[in-house]
Amino acid sequence: MLREPARSIRLGMVGGGTDAFIGGVHRMAARLDGAYDLLAGALSSTAERSLASAEALGLSRGYGSYQAMLEGELDLPEGERIEAVSIVTPNHLHYPVARAALEAGMHVICDKPMTLTSKEADELVELAQARGLVLAVTYNYTGYPMVRQARAMVQAGELGAIRKVVVEYHQGWLATKAEAEGVKQATWRADPAKAGIAGAMGDIGSHAENLMSTVTGLEVEALSADTTRFVPGRALEDDASILVRFQGGARGVLLATQVAVGAENDLRIRVFGEKGSLTWHQEEPNRLVHHPLGEPMRIYTRGGPGLHVQAEDASRIPAGHPEGFLEAFANLYAEIASSIRAAQGEQVTPGDHPTGVEGARGMRFIEATVASAASDVKWTPLPVGASS
Amino acid sequence: MLREPARSIRLGMVGGGTDAFIGGVHRMAARLDGAYDLLAGALSSTAERSLASAEALGLSRGYGSYQAMLEGELDLPEGERIEAVSIVTPNHLHYPVARAALEAGMHVICDKPMTLTSKEADELVELAQARGLVLAVTYNYTGYPMVRQARAMVQAGELGAIRKVVVEYHQGWLATKAEAEGVKQATWRADPAKAGIAGAMGDIGSHAENLMSTVTGLEVEALSADTTRFVPGRALEDDASILVRFQGGARGVLLATQVAVGAENDLRIRVFGEKGSLTWHQEEPNRLVHHPLGEPMRIYTRGGPGLHVQAEDASRIPAGHPEGFLEAFANLYAEIASSIRAAQGEQVTPGDHPTGVEGARGMRFIEATVASAASDVKWTPLPVGASS
Amino acid sequence: MLREPARSIRLGMVGGGTDAFIGGVHRMAARLDGAYDLLAGALSSTAERSLASAEALGLSRGYGSYQAMLEGELDLPEGERIEAVSIVTPNHLHYPVARAALEAGMHVICDKPMTLTSKEADELVELAQARGLVLAVTYNYTGYPMVRQARAMVQAGELGAIRKVVVEYHQGWLATKAEAEGVKQATWRADPAKAGIAGAMGDIGSHAENLMSTVTGLEVEALSADTTRFVPGRALEDDASILVRFQGGARGVLLATQVAVGAENDLRIRVFGEKGSLTWHQEEPNRLVHHPLGEPMRIYTRGGPGLHVQAEDASRIPAGHPEGFLEAFANLYAEIASSIRAAQGEQVTPGDHPTGVEGARGMRFIEATVASAASDVKWTPLPVGASS
Amino acid sequence: MLREPARSIRLGMVGGGTDAFIGGVHRMAARLDGAYDLLAGALSSTAERSLASAEALGLSRGYGSYQAMLEGELDLPEGERIEAVSIVTPNHLHYPVARAALEAGMHVICDKPMTLTSKEADELVELAQARGLVLAVTYNYTGYPMVRQARAMVQAGELGAIRKVVVEYHQGWLATKAEAEGVKQATWRADPAKAGIAGAMGDIGSHAENLMSTVTGLEVEALSADTTRFVPGRALEDDASILVRFQGGARGVLLATQVAVGAENDLRIRVFGEKGSLTWHQEEPNRLVHHPLGEPMRIYTRGGPGLHVQAEDASRIPAGHPEGFLEAFANLYAEIASSIRAAQGEQVTPGDHPTGVEGARGMRFIEATVASAASDVKWTPLPVGASS
Repeated sequence: MLREPARSIRLGMVGGGTDAFIGGVHRMAARLDGAYDLLAGALSSTAERSLASAEALGLSRGYGSYQAMLEGELDLPEGERIEAVSIVTPNHLHYPVARAALEAGMHVICDKPMTLTSKEADELVELAQARGLVLAVTYNYTGYPMVRQARAMVQAGELGAIRKVVVEYHQGWLATKAEAEGVKQATWRADPAKAGIAGAMGDIGSHAENLMSTVTGLEVEALSADTTRFVPGRALEDDASILVRFQGGARGVLLATQVAVGAENDLRIRVFGEKGSLTWHQEEPNRLVHHPLGEPMRIYTRGGPGLHVQAEDASRIPAGHPEGFLEAFANLYAEIASSIRAAQGEQVTPGDHPTGVEGARGMRFIEATVASAASDVKWTPLPVGASS
Repeated sequence: MLREPARSIRLGMVGGGTDAFIGGVHRMAARLDGAYDLLAGALSSTAERSLASAEALGLSRGYGSYQAMLEGELDLPEGERIEAVSIVTPNHLHYPVARAALEAGMHVICDKPMTLTSKEADELVELAQARGLVLAVTYNYTGYPMVRQARAMVQAGELGAIRKVVVEYHQGWLATKAEAEGVKQATWRADPAKAGIAGAMGDIGSHAENLMSTVTGLEVEALSADTTRFVPGRALEDDASILVRFQGGARGVLLATQVAVGAENDLRIRVFGEKGSLTWHQEEPNRLVHHPLGEPMRIYTRGGPGLHVQAEDASRIPAGHPEGFLEAFANLYAEIASSIRAAQGEQVTPGDHPTGVEGARGMRFIEATVASAASDVKWTPLPVGASS
Repeated sequence: MLREPARSIRLGMVGGGTDAFIGGVHRMAARLDGAYDLLAGALSSTAERSLASAEALGLSRGYGSYQAMLEGELDLPEGERIEAVSIVTPNHLHYPVARAALEAGMHVICDKPMTLTSKEADELVELAQARGLVLAVTYNYTGYPMVRQARAMVQAGELGAIRKVVVEYHQGWLATKAEAEGVKQATWRADPAKAGIAGAMGDIGSHAENLMSTVTGLEVEALSADTTRFVPGRALEDDASILVRFQGGARGVLLATQVAVGAENDLRIRVFGEKGSLTWHQEEPNRLVHHPLGEPMRIYTRGGPGLHVQAEDASRIPAGHPEGFLEAFANLYAEIASSIRAAQGEQVTPGDHPTGVEGARGMRFIEATVASAASDVKWTPLPVGASS
Repeated sequence: MLREPARSIRLGMVGGGTDAFIGGVHRMAARLDGAYDLLAGALSSTAERSLASAEALGLSRGYGSYQAMLEGELDLPEGERIEAVSIVTPNHLHYPVARAALEAGMHVICDKPMTLTSKEADELVELAQARGLVLAVTYNYTGYPMVRQARAMVQAGELGAIRKVVVEYHQGWLATKAEAEGVKQATWRADPAKAGIAGAMGDIGSHAENLMSTVTGLEVEALSADTTRFVPGRALEDDASILVRFQGGARGVLLATQVAVGAENDLRIRVFGEKGSLTWHQEEPNRLVHHPLGEPMRIYTRGGPGLHVQAEDASRIPAGHPEGFLEAFANLYAEIASSIRAAQGEQVTPGDHPTGVEGARGMRFIEATVASAASDVKWTPLPVGASS
C-alpha cells in the first residue's frame, strides 16, 4: 500500500496549460498522494497564455517561458525553489527543456516519446548521470499494479522462458482527419516538426514497446515494419504493424493504430512462455489473466490474493474498488519522488519507474521502425544503445 | 470535464488516522482536483495517536480530539480556520461530530451510514438547513459518471416507466470471522455499539439502497427482509435479502452480503423499464449496458459518444483510460466544494451530491429492514420521513 | 467424452409440429448422437396438421392424435414399435399423454413443467415406478457440462457447507403483450388453461428452481414470494422474486422475469459456501468461475484441465470449441437412452438426468410460490412430497 | 431459421474412425438437421480397424478402404448408393480420395487444408467443375451465424472501405511436444509426409486466412511471414506471424500459434473500416461487436434484433440459447446439402459454403507463407490462382 508522505517535493511544470489534456493528468497524478507541491509553471507556448493558465490554476509562480522559469527559480533560496520539472509539452520541446532543466540542477520528469531522436535521448541520459539527477520518463502504463505483477511473475520464472509476445495499442480517434478539424492534440501530433518522425508509433507505439520490454525484460534484436497513412493527406503514419525478433530467439508482434474506429485506449499485452501465459488489458487494468500449463486459468486482481509485493506496493485501495489510469500515473510520480529523495541524499530506496534509458531505447525502436518501413529488406537490426 | 479550481477549501478531518482505510480515501478524493487544503485533523480516538497521525501526514494543525479541533479552529481568524469538516469515524461518532461541527458553523461531509438512527439523521438535516450549511453524505458510488448517465437516462424517460430494479452488493471479506482476527475494519463494524443496529446492511446495503434510489428516483413503499448471521458468534447480520415494493407499483430486489467468498466489491444494478433496460457494475464502472426495446444492445463508455451532460461533466480523462473508485469519490468532493461555495455566497451552481436527506432516507431503510427481519408479517411499510 | 451408440432407440413424439419451437429442439437433441430414431409422431393438435408435419419431417409413421399413435404402435411387432415417447406439447397435455404412454408400456421423456399440479406429477411418478419405466423430465440446463462440474464440486465438499444461493432467469420477450401479437409460444403460455397456475414461474422459474436444487442438493423448507403482472391484461405473472430458506439454514434468492427488456436467456446461478463460491451463466455455458477462499479466482472451461469426470463425460469436443444449448439438451437425451437401455435389461449404468421426482418437486415449488404470493404471512412452507 | 428436410442425402465417410476427433464432429454435423444418412464408411487406415469402427458406429456398409468403398457403392443401384463422400483423413489423403470420389461421380465434402499443394487443389476444382459435382471444403468457422452477419455488414458497406484486418488463432495444445507423447492428432500433424509443408499454418492458420478472406472479401496481394519452431525437435512451424497487404491498399495481420499455453481455440477477427469496426471471437460466437463511427458500441447477438437475413438463416434456436461449434459445422453440412440437391437438378438454391476455390486460395496462402519465411525479401507476392 502506498503511504502518504510527510514532505512534498516542489515541482515546476512546462507545458500543460488549461486547454491541454496531458498537463491536467500530470497534475492530478502529482497531487493524488500529496507527494508534490506544484509551485511554478511555464504552461503554454506564449507568455500571455502561460500566465493566464498559471493564474487559473492558482499556481504561486507563473512564468512566461521555461527559460524564465528556470532563471527565476534559480534566483530563489534553495529551500524555496522547485526541485523538479515536469515536461508535458509537444515532443519537439522535450529535449531543449530537459537539457536546460538538468543544467539548472533540477530533476526531470519527461513525457514520452522522450525526444525527437535517440541521439538527443542519449545526451540527456549522459547529462543526468553526470549531474546525479533523476531523469524519469512517464511511460505511465508500467505504473499499473497488474503490469508490475506481470513483470514480477516473468522475473520469478513463473512463465518459464518467454517464447512470444503480442502487444497492441488500438485507438480510433484519428480515423477521420481530426488534425484538420481543430482537435488540438491531433494538430501537433500530425505535424512532423513537433511530433518527430513518427505518428502512431511515437504517440502510442512507444507505449506498447515500453510495456513489452518492461514486462518481458527481452531485448529487441531486429524488426520488420509495415506502416501506413490511411487518412488522406496525413503527414505521418496512423497505423503500424511490426514483427519483432528478440535476442535469444523469442518472437513478438507489435501493433499500433489510431484508425481503429471505436477503439478507445485498447492497449493489450499477451506473453506466452514455456510454462504459462499472461494477458493484460489496459481498459480492465485491475485484472491479470494467467494460464499455468495444464491447470485452469487464474485471474489475479489488484489488491487480491496471491500477488507479488511489487504489485501490492503499487496499490492504494482494496480489491474490487477499481483503480485506473490516474492511479497508475500517480504511481510513477510517487516512485519518482522516492528517486528524487534518494538522489538528494535521503535514506530511501530509489523508486521503480522508467528512466531516460528506457526513453532512449524507445527512440531507437521508433527509428528502426521508420527505417524498416522504408526498406525492402525484411529485418532491420536494432543498434545497441550507448545507454542500455 | 472537471476543471481545476483556483481556490481551495480549507478542510479539517475527524477520524482517518494513518491505519484507517477510509480516511486515506477521503484525503485522496479531496486532493485529486486541488479543491481542498487539508489543514487540520483529529484523526484517531486517542489524543496521542491523533497527533502522531497528523504529523505523519504533514498536517499543519493536529488536534487531540474533535472538540479540541473545533475550538482551536474557532479561535483562528475566519480566513484561516477550516470551512468544512470531513467525518470518517466509525458510525456511532457521525452524529455527535456532525452536530458539533454544524453548531460551530462548519460545513459537514459525513461518511455513511449517516447516523445510528433516522431520528439523529433528521435532526442533523434540520440543523444544517437552519444554519444554511452544507451537509453532504458520501454515498460515493453515485459519483461514478456512468451512474449519472443511468440516472439521466431514467429521468429523460429513455427506459419508460420503471418496472423492476435488482441491486446487489456482494463482498466476501467477512466470510470468516475477521473481527476475531484483528482486522480493524471488521472489529468495529461487528460491534453494535459502534456500527449500529445493522451489519452488512449498514456497511454496504446502505450503498445499494442509495444507488437504487438515486438511479431510479423511486420511493420505497414497503419491504420484506430476510437477514442472517452466517458466521457463528457474529453480533450483526452478514447477509440480507430484501424484496421491495415501490410507490407506483414497481418492484425491487436488494441483496447485500459479506460472506460471498471471493467477491470483492461486487455492486451491481439492473433497471428494467417498459422501453429499455440498464445494467451497471461497479467493478467495471466505465461501461453502462443499455438494451433498448427491439434493438441491439448498446454499451456506453465513460468519455465516449452519446452521453448526457451529467455524465460528461463527471469525467476527467478520455474514454478508454479507466477512471475508478477514487475518481468517483473525488467527484463527490468536487461537487460538495461547489455547494460549499454556493452556500458561502459565490455565484456558482450548488453541486450534485447526496445530502442528509438521502442519509436519513437510508437510515429509515435500514430500520425497516431490521424490523422486517424480525417480523412474521410479509410487508413492512417505510415511514415517510420528515426530511424527504 | 460421449460415445456414439451402435443401436438407436425407437422414438415417438407428441407435439412439436413444424411451427413449434421446442419440438425441433427435442428432435435435434435426439439426433445429435445418433441415439434415437424418430419414427412416429402425433405432432399437432389437429389430425390434419399432425399428418402434414409428419410428412414434412419425413417421419415413417405419422398419426392424427396421440391416442392413435399409441394404439397404432401397440399393433406393431415389439421390435418395430416405438420404445419411448417424447412429450413436447403445451403443459396441460403433459399429464394425459404421459399417463397414456406409461400405461401403454412406453418410456416417457416429458418437457417441463411436468404437469399442472403436483398431484398429477406424483401419480405419474408412481405409475412409472410401478411399471418399471423411465419417466424423464427435460430440465435441460442441468445437461450442461459445467453445471455438472458445479454439482460435482459441491458434492465433493470443495465449497464447504453452502450458505447462500442466488439463481435468476431473466428474459425480455414478454415485455410487451406478445400473446396479443400472435406469437404462438406466448399465446398458450399466457393461457391458464394450457399453462397452468403460473406464468414466468412455470416457464422459466421452474428451470431456475431445478438448477438451484440440482447444483446444491439442498431442500427448500419455505419461501416468500412476490409476483407481479407488469403487462396490462396478462392473465399470469410475468415476474417473480422469491426468498428461500433451505433445510439446514442456507438461504436463497430466486428471480424469474420475462419483462427484462433485452434479456435473452439470462439464467445464472451463484453458490456461496464456507470455503468457496461458484458462478455459472447459461449464456456463456462453457465456463465456471470458482473463488476458492483466500486464493485467486479460477475459471474452469468445458474440456479443459481440472474437471470432475461428470463434466468430462458430458462433453463432446475439445475445449474452446463452444458447446451450447443443443448439446446440453442432447446430453439429457443421451443419458435418458442409457436409462431406457438399463430399464430394458441391458448391462449399462442408468443415465444421469432429471426424473419425475424432480418434476414433482418443481410443481410443489410452483404451488408454494403461488400460495405465498397471495398470502400476508411471510413464509410459506413446502410440503414434503410423496416422491421425494 | 433452418428447416429440417424431408429427404436425406446418402453419405459415405473416409477417415474418422472411432478414435479420431474430427470424424465424430463431421458425423454430428451431418446428423443434427437430419439432412444426411451416413450409410457407408472406410473409417481407418487399416481394413481391420475400418470395419471395427463401422460396426461400432452401426454403419450399414463398412469397407476396408476408400477404394473398396467407391467400388462397392458403384455396384449398388443408383437409388441406394451414396451420393456424397466426406473426407476426414489426415491431409495427405485429401487429394487422392477426393479425386477418386469425384471420378466415381460423387460429391465431395473435404476437410481443410484442402490438399498438400495448390496444384492438387486446382486440379480438383477443375475436375469437379468438369463433372458438375459439388466440391465443398469445411472451413467450418464461416458457418457461424455471426460470421455471416459480419460478412453481410461488410458487403452492405456498413463499415465503409476496409482499412485493416487483424485475425489470429491462438492454441496452446502443442506448447509441449505432444507428438512425442502419443497424442494422435499431434502425431500426424507434426509429420510433413502427412500434414504437408506447414504445421500451425496448415492446421489453424488456414482457418484464419479463410475467415479473413470470407468476412472482408479482400484479396491478398503480398505477405511477409516469420515462422518459428518453438518446441525443440518439432518438424514443422508451431508459430507464425504474418503481415499482409491486400489489393487496393488495405493491410492485415495474421497470427497463428499452437504454443500459447492455455489458449483453447482462440480465433478472433477484427475488421476496421472507414465507417466502423467489427470484432468477433470464436469462443463467444453468438456475439458480434460493432463500433459505428461516432456512436456507442453495439453488440449484435445471434437470433437477436437487427441482423441481416444471412445471419438469421444460419440460426436454429432463440437468442441467448448458445449455439456453438457443432451448429456452425452443421450449417456447412446443411448448405452443402442444398448445393448437392441443386447439382442433382432439384429446384433449390445452392448453399452458401466454402468450395474448392477457397481451398485452393488457402493453399496458395500457405505456400506463400512458407516461401516468405525462408526469404530475406520483405514481401512475397501471392500468385493469382487458376481457379480464383
